[in-house]
Amino acid sequence: MEVKKVFLAEDEMPRQWYNILADIKMNPPLGPDGKPVGPDALAPVFPMNLIEQEVSPQRWIDIPNEVLDVLCIWRPSPLVRAIALEKYLDTPARIYFKNEGVSPPGSHKPNTAVPQAYYNKVFGIEKMTTETGAGQWGSALAFACSQFEIECKVFMVRVSFDQKPYRKSMMEAWGSQCIPSPSSETNAGRAALEKDPDTPGSLGIAISEAIEAAVSDQTGKTRYSLGSVLNHVMLHQTIIGLEAKKQLEKIGEYPDVVIGCAGGGSNFAGIAFPFVYDKINGKDIDIYPYEPAACPTMTKAPFVYDHGDTARYTPLLPMHSLGHAFVPPPIHAGGLRYHGMSPSVSQLVTEGIIEARAANQLEAYQAGVIFAKTEGFISAPETNHALAGVIEEAKRAKDEAKEKVILFNWSGHGLIDLEAYDKYFAGELYNFVLTEEEILESEKVFEDFPKPQLIKSR
Amino acid sequence: MEVKKVFLAEDEMPRQWYNILADIKMNPPLGPDGKPVGPDALAPVFPMNLIEQEVSPQRWIDIPNEVLDVLCIWRPSPLVRAIALEKYLDTPARIYFKNEGVSPPGSHKPNTAVPQAYYNKVFGIEKMTTETGAGQWGSALAFACSQFEIECKVFMVRVSFDQKPYRKSMMEAWGSQCIPSPSSETNAGRAALEKDPDTPGSLGIAISEAIEAAVSDQTGKTRYSLGSVLNHVMLHQTIIGLEAKKQLEKIGEYPDVVIGCAGGGSNFAGIAFPFVYDKINGKDIDIYPYEPAACPTMTKAPFVYDHGDTARYTPLLPMHSLGHAFVPPPIHAGGLRYHGMSPSVSQLVTEGIIEARAANQLEAYQAGVIFAKTEGFISAPETNHALAGVIEEAKRAKDEAKEKVILFNWSGHGLIDLEAYDKYFAGELYNFVLTEEEILESEKVFEDFPKPQLIKSR
Repeated sequence: MEVKKVFLAEDEMPRQWYNILADIKMNPPLGPDGKPVGPDALAPVFPMNLIEQEVSPQRWIDIPNEVLDVLCIWRPSPLVRAIALEKYLDTPARIYFKNEGVSPPGSHKPNTAVPQAYYNKVFGIEKMTTETGAGQWGSALAFACSQFEIECKVFMVRVSFDQKPYRKSMMEAWGSQCIPSPSSETNAGRAALEKDPDTPGSLGIAISEAIEAAVSDQTGKTRYSLGSVLNHVMLHQTIIGLEAKKQLEKIGEYPDVVIGCAGGGSNFAGIAFPFVYDKINGKDIDIYPYEPAACPTMTKAPFVYDHGDTARYTPLLPMHSLGHAFVPPPIHAGGLRYHGMSPSVSQLVTEGIIEARAANQLEAYQAGVIFAKTEGFISAPETNHALAGVIEEAKRAKDEAKEKVILFNWSGHGLIDLEAYDKYFAGELYNFVLTEEEILESEKVFEDFPKPQLIKSR
Repeated sequence: MEVKKVFLAEDEMPRQWYNILADIKMNPPLGPDGKPVGPDALAPVFPMNLIEQEVSPQRWIDIPNEVLDVLCIWRPSPLVRAIALEKYLDTPARIYFKNEGVSPPGSHKPNTAVPQAYYNKVFGIEKMTTETGAGQWGSALAFACSQFEIECKVFMVRVSFDQKPYRKSMMEAWGSQCIPSPSSETNAGRAALEKDPDTPGSLGIAISEAIEAAVSDQTGKTRYSLGSVLNHVMLHQTIIGLEAKKQLEKIGEYPDVVIGCAGGGSNFAGIAFPFVYDKINGKDIDIYPYEPAACPTMTKAPFVYDHGDTARYTPLLPMHSLGHAFVPPPIHAGGLRYHGMSPSVSQLVTEGIIEARAANQLEAYQAGVIFAKTEGFISAPETNHALAGVIEEAKRAKDEAKEKVILFNWSGHGLIDLEAYDKYFAGELYNFVLTEEEILESEKVFEDFPKPQLIKSR
């Protein structure tokens, strides 16, 4: 019997998050006037303690005990060796993954939902708002808010709200309210409904609604929460990679390759940033975020200043972007259908510290089915993109006859996303490839914006 | 920070199952002629190696390495202390649970699906058939068969097939075939369809179809598989309780109370039997199977000889039974809607070694919602019945000001059963209580059968 899983005891859990801002230099976010945005400008949207964390230059940031207590519901997550997958691929590579599907909502998202709810609570906030597309983030925040007894309202893109009723049920089981967006509760929602009463909604509109619902609360006790992109979100997710590093150490391993799927960037950052730190400090290691070929933010779009949302409520962020008005093709990995990319992940790409890659929808599902039949677990559509990358790297290791160690983030299970597997088996899933013209067209929206500097951090 | 979870390393995993047949005496199963059924009579249905296990008197039975390798995909499962639940209930009790929701299909069912698939494979079987109601068992066998490259066909009760399309998708992701029952593929199915083309189907018909599909395969390479009730199924599940015992030992604890929900009896047996062994050997410990009040097999029905299925294909089994023609009220815990009870669990009840209890549907869901808001995980409808029992016991401990240790089996998550939570919140769930008359009426079917002896094992 070969050992498949490495556990950490709770007292071996990391007690600090790793903050990559200590090790890279970045362009600042800009306000409407083109000047850097100060913390105060964000105060109506986020609680000040999270804003401070967003801009902190401190390399190691303590994880509060109250946060650890809740993370311990499912953390430390198992590190699993994918022995059956290795055998199936007949590869000399040793493949390890972090199983982030063991959390109550089934994904990595609560790693940041829990500290965000905690910091809001400490700041005296009584209600949080957010948006959700496919529902992983909304259900994670609902779970976290229930732990800290915070009211929570989730604006869920209507088409997903109708297609995935179980996500709403999960949020309600945790005591949250989940309503379809656009709704008649906000100006942004009413405007969208007036324009098209039958609109399927969009993440852009839902973000606008959630921000508006937070800032318009006259009591000042409501704040908005975002599940990816921002620095503090990446920070909270680093517990994944920090645990993985300890677990690999226990068995005398260190990765040659680190892989995560990337939409806004948070699950990738979670597993990768602690290894990026090693790479900056001289380790020889390849780090690949895998994005969908249908939404090729890092692999096809430029590094620019652009808004994080369609409605242009957010500051201008320095990032790879397909343009804030870009509507990604309807791939089933809803969590990867984002026009931009976390500024810190984007900065690492521009510096060549990490190398972005893309996977097509069909190869992603093919990889997911191989994984289900070997390692047993059914993966989220997003996670399948990481799996496509893992299989690509494992085959390369075979071709090169190299005993590589591959580490990847199994960011969540797909038990609530099974209709896409049905379509895959029925031959009803397709690859979407954008033309150069489509990409150039969608990029027009940021033509007149300031341009970020190309910074080398060292 | 209090420690919430106790892990076992893979090399600490139990290497043998505990077989309760070594410690209790039981009435034999009877054939149509009223005489004990020999192993040969079952040979067309089950492979001989499993039949031998079914009747083995050996107390400890080795777990094959090939089985351990697959169980290691998710086992040993975490033992979790429900600290937040304890605080919520303000109880002096310390509450621990085994998290069986971490398996790929999300329940305890693969603990027996995996060894069953393995023994079939070793015996040269190439195809397995089974039935499933709500779908937990069918998806577990599909997963297990994919691990051993066995073809698998699941007859799923039509009403569930239509209501829970995700279960079929899971089975297909693992390469199995799942068809609605009644089907036109078997005599039993065709007869049912002829009688009522719009029938919602039943577990009774689905069992008949699955057995018929197995025994009618002329190649002799197909066998049937059952996910509960039988001795070898209880045996395989004891890994849960054996792990729990080791985990509790690590932290110097031993349970005063052990609780599991019970439909056919397997998840209850899994956690309880290793402690029944201790009780038989002098330990002071209370062991409670919780069944639904709507299907009160142990708490209201007699210990008799009855068939395990509606179509009367199975031998007569000595068990508590509401009658093989009994159709349980439509509670949402599909896995507990069974007219009978595992003979070994039934024997323990008749001897007074364990004490059966019942929970109503509404108190079960109320308990599930409390658990979701404290411990974070959303439970399967079946599991909620165990939770109702745990909360009852924890409150009793408070009333008696006793520092009891309560151990229960968290048999699975409810992420594919969320529509029942919706109904609960909408006030559309009800308690079903059978009248004495209804019970007496349903018991008429076994009036003329032989009666089992009331055996005292020691």
